[in-house]
Amino acid sequence: MMNNAQQDKETGRIEAFSDGVFAIVITLLAFELRPPSVESTNANGLATALLQQWPNYLAFAASFFFILVMWINHHRLFTVIRRSDNNLMLLNGLLLFGITLLPFPTLLVAEYLQHSEQVTAVFFYNGLFLMIAVFYNLLWMYAAGNNRLFNTTADKSLMQHIARQYSVGLVMYTISLLMVFVNPVLSLMLNGLLGVFFAVPNRSVQQLMNAPDSAVNAT
Amino acid sequence: MMNNAQQDKETGRIEAFSDGVFAIVITLLAFELRPPSVESTNANGLATALLQQWPNYLAFAASFFFILVMWINHHRLFTVIRRSDNNLMLLNGLLLFGITLLPFPTLLVAEYLQHSEQVTAVFFYNGLFLMIAVFYNLLWMYAAGNNRLFNTTADKSLMQHIARQYSVGLVMYTISLLMVFVNPVLSLMLNGLLGVFFAVPNRSVQQLMNAPDSAVNAT
Amino acid sequence: MMNNAQQDKETGRIEAFSDGVFAIVITLLAFELRPPSVESTNANGLATALLQQWPNYLAFAASFFFILVMWINHHRLFTVIRRSDNNLMLLNGLLLFGITLLPFPTLLVAEYLQHSEQVTAVFFYNGLFLMIAVFYNLLWMYAAGNNRLFNTTADKSLMQHIARQYSVGLVMYTISLLMVFVNPVLSLMLNGLLGVFFAVPNRSVQQLMNAPDSAVNAT
Amino acid sequence: MMNNAQQDKETGRIEAFSDGVFAIVITLLAFELRPPSVESTNANGLATALLQQWPNYLAFAASFFFILVMWINHHRLFTVIRRSDNNLMLLNGLLLFGITLLPFPTLLVAEYLQHSEQVTAVFFYNGLFLMIAVFYNLLWMYAAGNNRLFNTTADKSLMQHIARQYSVGLVMYTISLLMVFVNPVLSLMLNGLLGVFFAVPNRSVQQLMNAPDSAVNAT
Repeated sequence: MMNNAQQDKETGRIEAFSDGVFAIVITLLAFELRPPSVESTNANGLATALLQQWPNYLAFAASFFFILVMWINHHRLFTVIRRSDNNLMLLNGLLLFGITLLPFPTLLVAEYLQHSEQVTAVFFYNGLFLMIAVFYNLLWMYAAGNNRLFNTTADKSLMQHIARQYSVGLVMYTISLLMVFVNPVLSLMLNGLLGVFFAVPNRSVQQLMNAPDSAVNAT
Repeated sequence: MMNNAQQDKETGRIEAFSDGVFAIVITLLAFELRPPSVESTNANGLATALLQQWPNYLAFAASFFFILVMWINHHRLFTVIRRSDNNLMLLNGLLLFGITLLPFPTLLVAEYLQHSEQVTAVFFYNGLFLMIAVFYNLLWMYAAGNNRLFNTTADKSLMQHIARQYSVGLVMYTISLLMVFVNPVLSLMLNGLLGVFFAVPNRSVQQLMNAPDSAVNAT
Repeated sequence: MMNNAQQDKETGRIEAFSDGVFAIVITLLAFELRPPSVESTNANGLATALLQQWPNYLAFAASFFFILVMWINHHRLFTVIRRSDNNLMLLNGLLLFGITLLPFPTLLVAEYLQHSEQVTAVFFYNGLFLMIAVFYNLLWMYAAGNNRLFNTTADKSLMQHIARQYSVGLVMYTISLLMVFVNPVLSLMLNGLLGVFFAVPNRSVQQLMNAPDSAVNAT
Repeated sequence: MMNNAQQDKETGRIEAFSDGVFAIVITLLAFELRPPSVESTNANGLATALLQQWPNYLAFAASFFFILVMWINHHRLFTVIRRSDNNLMLLNGLLLFGITLLPFPTLLVAEYLQHSEQVTAVFFYNGLFLMIAVFYNLLWMYAAGNNRLFNTTADKSLMQHIARQYSVGLVMYTISLLMVFVNPVLSLMLNGLLGVFFAVPNRSVQQLMNAPDSAVNAT
């Protein structure tokens, strides 16, 4: 049996690796912002040419804060995970798979927003958000199941409450995806609102994180 | 309640994530330095073509040392932060948002310095510096407020002294931004001087970091 | 003599550096996914143009999960490594050399799959997989030899069993490489299957990781 | 006064940040390897077109192993550094400045080796190596001076011995730089040999790292 220090090192390295991936993706997003072309600058001046790139800034900012919120939630989740195993590493890898993909549809939206093909671009973008939400739910369900968390004895109903909240998130992301066909810009805005919603500290998760240590020792 | 080891892990992971972002941005800056075009080399020789890229080197070096100084200050700040919460993660995320944006105006200055549109380019560049300084101040004010720091009982006047010094920084970055309209190159140089100013170890912050452990235990 | 805490810090920094490299490579892979060209979109619509890029998605996904599986195995290996030395750092560096190269043949396969030169592209791709497997074996053999692992007194036959399993992997990757000349697509699929094979937790390695701590103390 | 745990955290975060920079630079080097152009492939076949890129592979490999050796030496240095201060962070930042610059002259050598302008390209490349060696020496001299290291009481003559060996390195890199004007390819090869020389574990540094803990306590 591994002792506690080894267990901490185990989950610690998964967190370090995930942090690396989150940090790189969040930084590479801005790397796609490029100065406007010389032709565009010559025609309208640099200030106007820079402002005309607004879909790039919007797509960058939306993706940045989505990654930030995902990282905060990942961070919260691993605060309460007690031990790692092979499946946890694979499910976490699946989540990271979705995260690393994000710059691609971000670029797509930046290029095609306000163009005739914008529905397709936003569909891919919101579709990835839904996929990431599904992967996050899988990770949470696996981690929450079978006593893999700190404080699981603390409150069964608390866990069910969190699971229910996450399911609501899945439904909302699905609605946001389908709304693309009605109005792509509204759909993007709903996606942004969902990010704000998940950024707000979840009362139940916080309760889980702050459960007395005695409960941990008791398990 | 989390115990001390968990608290350390909490703030530790925010530091690790932030370190990742700082390290990636500082490394990507140099990645924008490219060999001169074949035409330029054929016309003047490689040595001359390389030297003609001096605005690129200047912009790279200025942004590199700005990030380095920001990282050192971030490092100092987290040395004295005792516990993390959701708002701290969001305010830190806001600071990182500004940091990841830096390669964009760096490229803008590298391309437009010595051209007719240089005022616009330097305005965006210095404007981002001011924005980052504002975000850093928000982070500091939140962290310093309401007993979120080590050693807060040590010296109230010390904290006020630090806050005053940071406000001076904000005013200086604003002046530097406005100076763009007078002389963009002078404005860039003032920005560089501000970096040197913040690199010098702040006597008050150092005093805070070195306050006796007994004070920590007393809180 | 270094004490245990220093030893942990030693191997810890090698892990952190390696994690950084793994995390960056796995993230940069997706960065090669670019929106289709305007001409392609104009001719067929964005959705079709996106679907026509399927070799890119396939190459990205295959390389992503290969890196993930390599990282999990690297993670497992370092769980049982007791102390680092100069040779371990160099052999680990050799493995990382192979890992950082991966985006290059991934791009090659993405560009040349379904073209007349696909045999050459897949040969380079699978050849790198074999090279990485060889480097991983060298690292394992060095780490396993001469009492450099935790729990080495536990079971000599266990170690030989693991070594034998890894050799099988080498043979399989060689077969996969040679199969390129028969059928490049089948060869790619065999490579994928080998990834799945190594993702499954190896019973012997797990036994080694879970050996009682008393054995550690006894060494 | 900070206690030992805080001191470790201090130097630990400098190491983590530096590791991040080293890891990103070493990974980005390979990212410059691109598939050959379609014209080149059409003319000669993909295999030949790939082989014709050999200066790229050479430059990549040389820079990769240089970074690896620098990282190993940085790692060794920080094993014996006891406490960090502002100057150490700035000198370490100066070293990282040189490290992040490396992809630029690597690209230069990859593009201009075997061309008429190769002397200029190799001069920049070897010049950066010398600059990095100078920065590393500054870091070492600062860290070694004034009791900033573990085990300084252990052996004064040991420290002088290490300092002498590093100075030899500086002289060798200067010779290698001047040799560019005689024969650029020979100069590149001497650079490679110097890397191998510094990869070999330095007996004196190792002695310093392995000095008995009692000496540490005695300081």
